[in-house]
Amino acid sequence: MTENPRIRGVLAPVVTPFTKELVPDSQRFLAHCRWLLAQGSGLAIFGTNSEANSLSLDERLVLLDFLLNAGIDPARMMPGTGSCALSDAVQLTERATQAGCAGVLMLPPFFYKNVAEEGLFRFFSEIIERVGDARLRIYLYHIPPVTMVGFSPGLVERLLSRYPDVIAGMKDSSGDWNNTKTMLDNFAASGFDVFVGSETFLLANMQHGGVGCISATANVNPAAIERLCRSWQAVDAGAQQQRLDAVRGVVERAALLPALKAVLARYRNDPAWATVRPPLIELNLAQRRALEQGLDALDFAMPGLDAG
Amino acid sequence: MTENPRIRGVLAPVVTPFTKELVPDSQRFLAHCRWLLAQGSGLAIFGTNSEANSLSLDERLVLLDFLLNAGIDPARMMPGTGSCALSDAVQLTERATQAGCAGVLMLPPFFYKNVAEEGLFRFFSEIIERVGDARLRIYLYHIPPVTMVGFSPGLVERLLSRYPDVIAGMKDSSGDWNNTKTMLDNFAASGFDVFVGSETFLLANMQHGGVGCISATANVNPAAIERLCRSWQAVDAGAQQQRLDAVRGVVERAALLPALKAVLARYRNDPAWATVRPPLIELNLAQRRALEQGLDALDFAMPGLDAG
Repeated sequence: MTENPRIRGVLAPVVTPFTKELVPDSQRFLAHCRWLLAQGSGLAIFGTNSEANSLSLDERLVLLDFLLNAGIDPARMMPGTGSCALSDAVQLTERATQAGCAGVLMLPPFFYKNVAEEGLFRFFSEIIERVGDARLRIYLYHIPPVTMVGFSPGLVERLLSRYPDVIAGMKDSSGDWNNTKTMLDNFAASGFDVFVGSETFLLANMQHGGVGCISATANVNPAAIERLCRSWQAVDAGAQQQRLDAVRGVVERAALLPALKAVLARYRNDPAWATVRPPLIELNLAQRRALEQGLDALDFAMPGLDAG
Repeated sequence: MTENPRIRGVLAPVVTPFTKELVPDSQRFLAHCRWLLAQGSGLAIFGTNSEANSLSLDERLVLLDFLLNAGIDPARMMPGTGSCALSDAVQLTERATQAGCAGVLMLPPFFYKNVAEEGLFRFFSEIIERVGDARLRIYLYHIPPVTMVGFSPGLVERLLSRYPDVIAGMKDSSGDWNNTKTMLDNFAASGFDVFVGSETFLLANMQHGGVGCISATANVNPAAIERLCRSWQAVDAGAQQQRLDAVRGVVERAALLPALKAVLARYRNDPAWATVRPPLIELNLAQRRALEQGLDALDFAMPGLDAG
């Protein structure tokens, strides 16, 4: 078997549309995935901004199979498969790996707090041994502001040293550039691929040996983020970064996830996109107006969208 | 239909035994449930100290059905049915309610942090409407040290006022007596049953209008906790409370859950009981020795246990 090239560049944690009855809407999901691919973005389905943890295991398996059956290229996919439950994490990781997904993005188990590093090591070790597939590539999802449980450099080192072919990289959503820099300095040279969790750090990441970003905003601004990722050595890279930051600033001003869905609802002219599952709530009218005015002031557009 | 009396007194968040392969061990689980019932404890299966969030939905459904099929009285059960995923919470709550369980103990969705009260209200509202069963009794599980998401008095008031027959009470595991006191003062008179999450607060809770406790330590010391709960007005209540605190102090010195399992392994003479699922880890040898010496110094015993 020849080794596939690693997935790199820009990936969107694909937002999950819901029907009025709060059921995942697979047709709208597929349409959005196709648009993202056409814009140059990969698909990190089942991320934080996909409301993945608001979905049951079965709902996630059904959506994954739906995309695969519709012909979406698994080599462009990095599904989120982490879970508090070992058994769920194994089942979803196994399915994604057998389907040929480029990798999986795994949260640590996040219910218990202050768990020992040894316990986290055992959790991932059990998953890797149980899946038992040479194609498995795990990207560690470090997002302590949400999970309160993270991947220390010591844990990364231990996992990498025991499973050098499986532990492929990290999505760093700490929001702390010093942490990203530590991961790059310690592990990038040995083939550990660091993605930043926000395009705010994209230029810095590329300049220091990182490989891209997996960012919520890629759901609405994928082409521009992908362009900076590709042309980070160009003379206008700094200006590109500023423009990305301006758009992100407007979108994240209220609440990031409902704002992304509001943007999709507006530019697709499809109000159904605004629906979120509790415990999240949609933007109120004032927040939506501010969002729209902010984007208009930046002449923001979403090319190639089929309205409705 | 005549109204069943509310479940009150002492309940154990029943610890979940695992086989060497980390599969839930239903026979040992059943044996432990029977012993707890014989000692006067109710069964809050699928709690924090049951490693419930380390189990898949299917694993929880199978264990629940196993107990029911074995003849365990559902009127003595309050399964944990909260989940980050609306769909999982609905399915498990529905099953428990249809089976005749006395109530369900529900965590708030705990992945997203800093969620709006409106979002939490909608989450519980959706569950109640979807389950749509007049027998449903929900006990709110307030444990902010673990979930980082809690039930404010405002949220409790809103839920109680919209669903007075369904919202039956709370398990307060904040570890903050002032919070318990606020819940008692505001809501106990209207029939909101407050359980404390540790027997440390049992006497105070009973003196201020609470109805019992749901405590990890009830897995190993149920009869003594139940006795104080029943005889809290007796002259020796203070002495009983001191003795409960001493036993708890020894058990929680290292790490509460693995310590409970170590105690069961020792007094049942059955080392298999010590197994935990990652990310938790079992006690090390020094911790186990200190635990055993501490219990021996208190002349601690577990009456009525079948060894092995």
